[in-house]
Amino acid sequence: MIQKSMRFAYQGEPGAFSEAAAGRLNPSAETMPCRAFEDVFAAVASSAATHGVLPIENSVGGSIHRNYDLLSEHELPIVGEVELKVEHNLIALPGVTLADVRRVYSHPQALAQCEVFLRSLEEVDIVATYDTAGSARMIRDGDLRDTAAIASRRAGEIFGLSILRERVHDYDSNVTRFIVIARDPTPLGPPDKTSILFAMPNKPGALFKALSVFALRDIDLAKLESRPLRGTPWEYVFYLDLNASRTDPACARALEHLAEFATFVRTLGSYARWNQPL
Amino acid sequence: MIQKSMRFAYQGEPGAFSEAAAGRLNPSAETMPCRAFEDVFAAVASSAATHGVLPIENSVGGSIHRNYDLLSEHELPIVGEVELKVEHNLIALPGVTLADVRRVYSHPQALAQCEVFLRSLEEVDIVATYDTAGSARMIRDGDLRDTAAIASRRAGEIFGLSILRERVHDYDSNVTRFIVIARDPTPLGPPDKTSILFAMPNKPGALFKALSVFALRDIDLAKLESRPLRGTPWEYVFYLDLNASRTDPACARALEHLAEFATFVRTLGSYARWNQPL
Repeated sequence: MIQKSMRFAYQGEPGAFSEAAAGRLNPSAETMPCRAFEDVFAAVASSAATHGVLPIENSVGGSIHRNYDLLSEHELPIVGEVELKVEHNLIALPGVTLADVRRVYSHPQALAQCEVFLRSLEEVDIVATYDTAGSARMIRDGDLRDTAAIASRRAGEIFGLSILRERVHDYDSNVTRFIVIARDPTPLGPPDKTSILFAMPNKPGALFKALSVFALRDIDLAKLESRPLRGTPWEYVFYLDLNASRTDPACARALEHLAEFATFVRTLGSYARWNQPL
Repeated sequence: MIQKSMRFAYQGEPGAFSEAAAGRLNPSAETMPCRAFEDVFAAVASSAATHGVLPIENSVGGSIHRNYDLLSEHELPIVGEVELKVEHNLIALPGVTLADVRRVYSHPQALAQCEVFLRSLEEVDIVATYDTAGSARMIRDGDLRDTAAIASRRAGEIFGLSILRERVHDYDSNVTRFIVIARDPTPLGPPDKTSILFAMPNKPGALFKALSVFALRDIDLAKLESRPLRGTPWEYVFYLDLNASRTDPACARALEHLAEFATFVRTLGSYARWNQPL
């Protein structure tokens, strides 16, 4: 169901991992760089892009909570998912050596994924930026000879930076999972996964009761994430990923069952996975 | 059970919210500033401090995942908990106006809690630093007249900065929950809460089964947090807070029951709460 006329909005600059994720979905699609995750949602809502590609979880750093919050604030359904193996490199202007580096730029998630390496650097400031590839661009634009970025090999190529140190990520199995949002809820392929958002009354056993509707029907949970209900300390909304499509009758019945006692339930989408990391 | 000879290690500089949390626990205790959360764990492990005070969750920003990971890596028990109402201010050198500000420094969690305000600023770089109060110190030390910090009123007083804008946090009910770690597992007061860490075999219904041991005994869950099992994509460990002490027989039996089928269970501590935010 991948169409030729797709246009993928993503957060970051050319060379960002999100752009690579869009390329895995459809190598011939146009891509549209956005400054912030909010801008990806806005691009899809306004039809400036047909789809948005957003990182939702990394196997080392955990959930990208901001995107969970934005899914809740917007009404755009999830229509697909793709995984990407992440390889980080320390890159700098040609001729710069590790001894010249006084500052390392990257996205907070990338910094978190290279913690062991970064801790080994002495007298170096670690600066959080909005993007991995954007950090590479800042170094090129500012001709910053005392600064390095943590980014993909491709970001280095795009912005003319050299690799100072390859594969600086702490864990070899570093995979990021991206979701695809669209205005049209039609999944990109035959759906085998469903994401929902729900809240329960704050009572003993409430979450147990919620999970029972899936356990009693042998529906496997892929992920459970709790996020604060803003303005109400220590109350939560839950994001749940199920390994089933909502078109599957057991899953549909489980969601109806949950709605009987949840404060609210919203299905964020049933969608297909591209599950083989490149 | 609060002793006079307490020495609280905390992350940040004098004026940090963690220091204020230590002050709420025992106003006459010594405090010991540390650069990173890891250093707080190290100070307690080496007996350089009797206790460590660590933010674990904010009612707006959510969990402080790094401290969940550090609790898992270390063997230091949780012996107490305290809540603190958080009020953020934009502070700068005396005479600096909002129009002069080109850069805002603060801790990533504080930046996340002031998102609406920060988005209203134009042509201003948002820079993540290691500490709210430390950002105030950097401005004073560097005489940075184009930079403001988001920090507590007290941090402004300590480092001689003026308030440019009061209460810039997005949500009025902004509360941070801190845990207290120590080498001695004796709780700071009569325990009414227990934190555990566990993992389950990756099978359908596994989490439901884990929660059943508490639901069947009417033990209330306060918080459930999943964190990636590093090196194994899409497998998780769970951090669970129970509103019960492990000395309560029903809670003790529930933990034994969980151990029957969990991959592992570790009790991080049973402890007392100081639950009234100041």
